[in-house]
Amino acid sequence: MIKAIIIGASGYTGAELLRLLGQHPNAAVVAATSETYAGQAASTLYPHLTRSADQKFVTPEQAVETGADIVFTALPHGRSMTVVGDLIADKRRVIDLSGDFRLAAGEVYTEWYKMPHTLPGLLDSAVYGLPELNKRIIPEAGLVSNPGCYPTSAILALLPALEKNLVTPEGIVVDSLSGVSGAGRAADENTHFCVRSESVAAYKAGGGHQHIPEMEQYLSIAADARVTISFTPHLGPFSRGIYTTVYANLAGPKSIDQMLEVYGERYADEPFVKVLPAGVMPELKAVRGSNFCHIGLAVDARAGRLVVVSAIDNLIKGASGQAVQNMNIMFGLPETMGLEQGAIWP
Amino acid sequence: MIKAIIIGASGYTGAELLRLLGQHPNAAVVAATSETYAGQAASTLYPHLTRSADQKFVTPEQAVETGADIVFTALPHGRSMTVVGDLIADKRRVIDLSGDFRLAAGEVYTEWYKMPHTLPGLLDSAVYGLPELNKRIIPEAGLVSNPGCYPTSAILALLPALEKNLVTPEGIVVDSLSGVSGAGRAADENTHFCVRSESVAAYKAGGGHQHIPEMEQYLSIAADARVTISFTPHLGPFSRGIYTTVYANLAGPKSIDQMLEVYGERYADEPFVKVLPAGVMPELKAVRGSNFCHIGLAVDARAGRLVVVSAIDNLIKGASGQAVQNMNIMFGLPETMGLEQGAIWP
Amino acid sequence: MIKAIIIGASGYTGAELLRLLGQHPNAAVVAATSETYAGQAASTLYPHLTRSADQKFVTPEQAVETGADIVFTALPHGRSMTVVGDLIADKRRVIDLSGDFRLAAGEVYTEWYKMPHTLPGLLDSAVYGLPELNKRIIPEAGLVSNPGCYPTSAILALLPALEKNLVTPEGIVVDSLSGVSGAGRAADENTHFCVRSESVAAYKAGGGHQHIPEMEQYLSIAADARVTISFTPHLGPFSRGIYTTVYANLAGPKSIDQMLEVYGERYADEPFVKVLPAGVMPELKAVRGSNFCHIGLAVDARAGRLVVVSAIDNLIKGASGQAVQNMNIMFGLPETMGLEQGAIWP
Amino acid sequence: MIKAIIIGASGYTGAELLRLLGQHPNAAVVAATSETYAGQAASTLYPHLTRSADQKFVTPEQAVETGADIVFTALPHGRSMTVVGDLIADKRRVIDLSGDFRLAAGEVYTEWYKMPHTLPGLLDSAVYGLPELNKRIIPEAGLVSNPGCYPTSAILALLPALEKNLVTPEGIVVDSLSGVSGAGRAADENTHFCVRSESVAAYKAGGGHQHIPEMEQYLSIAADARVTISFTPHLGPFSRGIYTTVYANLAGPKSIDQMLEVYGERYADEPFVKVLPAGVMPELKAVRGSNFCHIGLAVDARAGRLVVVSAIDNLIKGASGQAVQNMNIMFGLPETMGLEQGAIWP
Repeated sequence: MIKAIIIGASGYTGAELLRLLGQHPNAAVVAATSETYAGQAASTLYPHLTRSADQKFVTPEQAVETGADIVFTALPHGRSMTVVGDLIADKRRVIDLSGDFRLAAGEVYTEWYKMPHTLPGLLDSAVYGLPELNKRIIPEAGLVSNPGCYPTSAILALLPALEKNLVTPEGIVVDSLSGVSGAGRAADENTHFCVRSESVAAYKAGGGHQHIPEMEQYLSIAADARVTISFTPHLGPFSRGIYTTVYANLAGPKSIDQMLEVYGERYADEPFVKVLPAGVMPELKAVRGSNFCHIGLAVDARAGRLVVVSAIDNLIKGASGQAVQNMNIMFGLPETMGLEQGAIWP
Repeated sequence: MIKAIIIGASGYTGAELLRLLGQHPNAAVVAATSETYAGQAASTLYPHLTRSADQKFVTPEQAVETGADIVFTALPHGRSMTVVGDLIADKRRVIDLSGDFRLAAGEVYTEWYKMPHTLPGLLDSAVYGLPELNKRIIPEAGLVSNPGCYPTSAILALLPALEKNLVTPEGIVVDSLSGVSGAGRAADENTHFCVRSESVAAYKAGGGHQHIPEMEQYLSIAADARVTISFTPHLGPFSRGIYTTVYANLAGPKSIDQMLEVYGERYADEPFVKVLPAGVMPELKAVRGSNFCHIGLAVDARAGRLVVVSAIDNLIKGASGQAVQNMNIMFGLPETMGLEQGAIWP
Repeated sequence: MIKAIIIGASGYTGAELLRLLGQHPNAAVVAATSETYAGQAASTLYPHLTRSADQKFVTPEQAVETGADIVFTALPHGRSMTVVGDLIADKRRVIDLSGDFRLAAGEVYTEWYKMPHTLPGLLDSAVYGLPELNKRIIPEAGLVSNPGCYPTSAILALLPALEKNLVTPEGIVVDSLSGVSGAGRAADENTHFCVRSESVAAYKAGGGHQHIPEMEQYLSIAADARVTISFTPHLGPFSRGIYTTVYANLAGPKSIDQMLEVYGERYADEPFVKVLPAGVMPELKAVRGSNFCHIGLAVDARAGRLVVVSAIDNLIKGASGQAVQNMNIMFGLPETMGLEQGAIWP
Repeated sequence: MIKAIIIGASGYTGAELLRLLGQHPNAAVVAATSETYAGQAASTLYPHLTRSADQKFVTPEQAVETGADIVFTALPHGRSMTVVGDLIADKRRVIDLSGDFRLAAGEVYTEWYKMPHTLPGLLDSAVYGLPELNKRIIPEAGLVSNPGCYPTSAILALLPALEKNLVTPEGIVVDSLSGVSGAGRAADENTHFCVRSESVAAYKAGGGHQHIPEMEQYLSIAADARVTISFTPHLGPFSRGIYTTVYANLAGPKSIDQMLEVYGERYADEPFVKVLPAGVMPELKAVRGSNFCHIGLAVDARAGRLVVVSAIDNLIKGASGQAVQNMNIMFGLPETMGLEQGAIWP
């Protein structure tokens, strides 16, 4: 039984870790921290948690003294750095869900996150926890940096095409629609039901979102060439999920069947990536509540473009489910353990 | 491993049985019928089903020839009767999810379902599959009649108070709000997104819903007196769940703490019923995707009434999850096996 | 042209007054106050307001010095009292949208609103602004107390039956479902999109809501007998609207046609109340964005009950639209002026 | 008073014409046809229509014999052609809301709509009814072809930039999210509440949507160069509205302020187009129920792209409201008459 600590368990990703680990056959949460709710039962804050996951939040200090095999840090970016350094120094294995260890260079972090990186020395050893990319090196990792939700959807959509140079590295457009849970648990005007219901809004348009360098870094590696993207995130009137539509210029003519074959081969051994047949596009609801990524493809011969559409649950494959998947890989368990649950539909 | 057949697997309750049994550690679906979709993969119709549940629909004829330990019939009322008779004659154990075997008398069925009952002889031996009521007799049952969604929510809300005569049998009001999935998979004007979104509508108001005699039958047994209720179902702008508010006249003054104690004791050993503390009312979303029923209580001393609020997922505790719970009990498995999944929240 | 001031214009009812008066052919807003947003354009806060309604918020002090024919006070209860006294002393005509002047006695206010009433002397002269009840005395009123949203839906549902003694004053149940805008513009956990979407929750169950004495006061007048009700409000996953289902014991047998005739006659001259034919229940969306109240009736002969269902837009007929209707009546304009807009559907 | 006939009044755009013309001070509907509902009151089908719009559907034959100043044809594409020819031959003025007369060449129609065009001779004289483009020639038009919903949102987003050659004609991406009402009133699996709620789905991806040639035709005119676009439509979980995000390559460096100035000047005299200030993106809900188009701009200097976001109500500015706007222009009325209504918010 893997003993796990969750640092920052009162946010949405923390709650999802509590739920998923509470159902995991080989893992148990031994401590879950919340400065605000320390001493209260998790199920008071989150009535959906069943009895098995019903434990009390503790302070970070109490957690530090608890023995554990793995520590999940689910803090906002900037705050995560302040915790992960000590944990690593303490020889803990860590899966960090923030954006603090995803970029290769501290200066890039500073540019996009608008704050200095205080632990640039850890960036080299951190392993980017996208199993479909790094499954071979995750087992040995001391610090796994769990991917962002938007990057997970965009990178999985583009990997096969870029690795095979079927599309050019220039001119890629990534257009994403996220559920409101992506904005976090904090209640403000922008997450108010009356504002978000029956509405849609773009934000950080024009290249301002901090997930852009993360996408470009891994897409560039896949393409073996510098990739610059246009990315626009939107908030849609639903709680969960990310629906991403990617446009890329074809390097040369390709049929949809050829494309599907490339994608099918690339993901043949990936249990959580499902490439849909020609003519079928992902339905976001079909991945909600699951760790799956559904991918649909179309070739626009007229415009010379490949269109790839991907759908994930932002809190699962886009955050906590992927973190558990990484934990499974780190500890030599079947990758899918505790994550077999299909989507709740309808 | 329990081998299960699903008759009528292309509707919402059938799909939910496919999903739940696909995740059950001790059960496997050996045949799932659909006249319309026979020969097609279930995951084509339902893309949320993961690989493990990915099987082809067969015809009813093919299913009849398949050996199995249990048959789930998930057909519309009226059609179920035509199938269950043969299955029972064939010595199959059956869990029927329709309304065909829930009422004690064929005449009452005819009155409310507006059609003759063709198998009244089976009504006596059918066991009403509400585990919280009949857990002791379900293990031996040949035919379990799975409760309706509205009755599950209303009976669980009222059982403790009626059994202890804390409320009078007269004057009970049951007001329920159902998700649109309760209206089934059929697309019509009433289930169109544009009609149902941001809307609410009562239907069969004034005592016309066929679940009324089912509620009254079991509430009367609990009260040991004839119970007549007013029941109004409504459709709300959400996919899943039933939220029921019950009003009953207090037989005598009782404090909220006394009521909570009675309810707490009554459901102490029921793994799927959670009585909330004083002042807390159920949040429907906290049971969505789970087999739980959450119950909140309030005493209105001014009006002399007990108010009980219950929340379930109509497709799980209100249908397929409860059916799996019944299967577990019939086969001597832990009641919660395959059903531990907590609600998806948010 | 009627010159109007809105005190407290940055909340939802204030915004709705801005929108409705901005479209009114015979009225103009000369000042709209907001302590928080003073100096900012209303359309910055509310981008839906068109150019015609595009004005700057001012401070209360600035508003007080502005000449006007009518003042709308759209402040929270408790705060309204502190403003209305001075306005009345200043010989202003006022339509107050809070709960501060709806109850006949200061003690009852104190009991339900949990605070002392500082202006009990004004309660006698305040006219309850439900046009369907008080159309004759509203024209002369100096202070119109605009009804609460829940009471509007419940009183309109019950008036005809109680006035004709077709139902008994005892045993009435009022069950209401409100859109989230009823909880106001303040962002908190309870109004977060991720909590409210696909969910339902009862609140203040067991007779705790401050609208109960308001309903009972006017229902008792209609019945000419003391009416005590059970009332449970719920929040549903939609922005606007109140859907109320009322249960009342029949005083004697009545057919649905007899009931419809009574209701039809009672509301024959009311332009905003529409009694639906037998068998048709209100669809909430059909009143959204309009000042209409739709009423559906059913007779439950078995249970001896009348079931009445009413639907309104909580921000229009339940608040700001009704206030404009009252203004029209006060100033001798056609009651429907500026309010003819039908519901937005779908 | 303009007398109007609506051919095909039982669909969503027809209903919206009934609502808008019912509130128009200078127009009256003298006949509204529906083959299915002929003889029934419009308000039976559409309970949101208020008394003023309460009229009976008639057959097309009855409509043809009715005298009128303008005929709105709101039929599916392909069927519209069969009606408009006779109307024009009969010297009627027509506003056609289908796609039948929007393209310049019959062959292009045949290619995209997959059916022959039977009235190619009318294509030349049909005036494309986008007032922001053709306001000067609409007054004299005999046949106005009302723009499609997606093209309205995309063309308004790109016009100023293309007319001034600020972006290149190559490489434009148009990504749109539509409310479910865009799929029409027909109930099928794809419009079922349980499928669409909390979901998103792309359709006709890869350049298959019939609105593409319409967009390219008018964008090419604006650019004075051949424009080829990539367009992906999506269905989102809301009833009304289109939210379009456009990506175009900058022809040369431009600041956001320079862009805003160009857009501001271009639309200075357009009453229904509102260009938002720097840093503000449209909120879809802020145009719902109104004839407005809100436009937000961002310059992505890194990627060398202009990002334009536009929001409209698909049934109003994207269909029936724009048709009424065209009617106003054709008859010399103020362009905004009957269309001043602001969005319903929240």
